[in-house]
Amino acid sequence: MAPAGPRSGDAIFANVERVNAELFTLTYGATVRQLLTDLEEVEEVNKQLDQMGYNIGIRLIDEFLAKSNVARCVDFKETAEMIAKVGFKMFLGVTATVTNWDANDTCCSIMLEDNPLVDFVELPDTCQGLYYCNILSGVIGGALEMVSMKTEVTWLRDVLRGDDAYEMQVKLLKQVPEEYPYKDDE
Amino acid sequence: MAPAGPRSGDAIFANVERVNAELFTLTYGATVRQLLTDLEEVEEVNKQLDQMGYNIGIRLIDEFLAKSNVARCVDFKETAEMIAKVGFKMFLGVTATVTNWDANDTCCSIMLEDNPLVDFVELPDTCQGLYYCNILSGVIGGALEMVSMKTEVTWLRDVLRGDDAYEMQVKLLKQVPEEYPYKDDE
Repeated sequence: MAPAGPRSGDAIFANVERVNAELFTLTYGATVRQLLTDLEEVEEVNKQLDQMGYNIGIRLIDEFLAKSNVARCVDFKETAEMIAKVGFKMFLGVTATVTNWDANDTCCSIMLEDNPLVDFVELPDTCQGLYYCNILSGVIGGALEMVSMKTEVTWLRDVLRGDDAYEMQVKLLKQVPEEYPYKDDE
Repeated sequence: MAPAGPRSGDAIFANVERVNAELFTLTYGATVRQLLTDLEEVEEVNKQLDQMGYNIGIRLIDEFLAKSNVARCVDFKETAEMIAKVGFKMFLGVTATVTNWDANDTCCSIMLEDNPLVDFVELPDTCQGLYYCNILSGVIGGALEMVSMKTEVTWLRDVLRGDDAYEMQVKLLKQVPEEYPYKDDE
């Protein structure tokens, strides 16, 4: 049998097990609220959300590689496109776009057109400084580390903070040449 | 136009926005892990998970009533069936069954055939006593309170604790006769 080719994010998303998006959104909201209560400092919550995302990302990458059948990305540029076009679709059911590449192709922005994490969310004044979606940047950082790319992922724009879009900057710090953590015949 | 009739959990689930179940499972896992780190006491984590669930449930009930088009349940027995057959399907994509009714029809068990929360989860010895799925019982308690049923929801059996099934006991403590928090013509 010929090996299956790469699959579109839509096709994968249609076939994976899913849960109600509102349940996910509310569960995440309850988590952030709990962290704010327990940790008190907004800065500390930002850090923890990022760490939680990292822990998720280092495991989610397995699901991504197993389900997407994508070939190994040749470079960071292709990897970023894969995250935006396949990854976001496959896990959150939304599309993202990649823009603002620097001259070296080592830094770009991922723009979220739709962000299921923030439905019904309004931040009270006491939460200024909170990066509510830090879990997402953490996931990307964790997942990329598992495919040998050490990155720094930060939010440049965040509608919850008064900006006009959701824009995450992904900066490649170091790339370790290495095989994917799976074999082609699996 | 004739009012739409009640919809099956499957039909609703097929049409609501959804996210990848593995992302949900891992996000919940990261949350529990974080609470264990921050709160240290397993008992305290159980309480917080229940409270988080309650906060989710009091909002999720709106989505349930809006999307399911179910008629008002005539009694607690019908309500429990609705949770198991429509609610679990609509939010988690799984089916549950109701059993073990007491003689007064005020106490029953909800059995989960499949539990997406616990995929990949193994509790270390340090977490004995943890009710990992306490968020679910909290959701049910919160949702029922919004339709005027004060309940006590507890886990009788939990596979993660070495039991052979997931069994939640739902005990009706008090029922306040009241209208649903929505109007029929909405």
